[in-house]
Amino acid sequence: MQQQISVITLSVADLSRSRRFYVDGFGWSPVFENEDILFYQMNGFVLGTWLDGGLEGDMQREGLRRPGAFSLAHNVREQGQVARLMERLASAGGRILRPADAPPQGGWRGYVADPDDHAWEIAFNPAWPIDDQGLVTFGL
Amino acid sequence: MQQQISVITLSVADLSRSRRFYVDGFGWSPVFENEDILFYQMNGFVLGTWLDGGLEGDMQREGLRRPGAFSLAHNVREQGQVARLMERLASAGGRILRPADAPPQGGWRGYVADPDDHAWEIAFNPAWPIDDQGLVTFGL
Repeated sequence: MQQQISVITLSVADLSRSRRFYVDGFGWSPVFENEDILFYQMNGFVLGTWLDGGLEGDMQREGLRRPGAFSLAHNVREQGQVARLMERLASAGGRILRPADAPPQGGWRGYVADPDDHAWEIAFNPAWPIDDQGLVTFGL
Repeated sequence: MQQQISVITLSVADLSRSRRFYVDGFGWSPVFENEDILFYQMNGFVLGTWLDGGLEGDMQREGLRRPGAFSLAHNVREQGQVARLMERLASAGGRILRPADAPPQGGWRGYVADPDDHAWEIAFNPAWPIDDQGLVTFGL
């Protein structure tokens, strides 16, 4: 069985507000967008942002809640990039949850919520290699 | 800026209960585990399951909620694998949210909640190629 995740889908209340965070904040480009959903091609999988109601309808489950008990992380290659990216995300509609500092295991990280309260860790973790395609490997 | 997600971290109430779902259900192997956290090396990024309290403490934010307004998807290569994997996940502590059927855009999919109520879509989507490393590419 492949250890594989194909899609991460975030439910969002306002597509253009969310788009601003991901496009202007992270600097990413959608590979597809319509009036309901945007998809971003990521490092080996796809990130989707789907207008509220779409995901609940698809999974036939109401009452999805924010903030959810999860986080996403984007790792950068240099410690100094952490705070700079967090500032850019805040300028694009994000909200800083924890300013950058050193975690117990080493490196440097902070947390920013996207406009829909989904949490992003922005991290410099020298033990986890990132290749030129953006593929990330666990390390100690 | 790399379109890159390094980690997806799920907050879980019971590590061994969660481990059973991911190891016995999906058939995945952790690359690291201790009494607080398990990591799985995925297709270009890392999946973490972190005991409740760990993630809240790390992001300095209380009150994470379930079910969160997001889903993860695992795509399979043949339509017949969708229901079989969903049954195996249910046997390993998951709960079927939506039995498999055809979505509007084609293919076949259903939803299963993990023991901590995080939603997984199990999907057959012939428009999105999966390579031998498990890397998934958006397609129409």
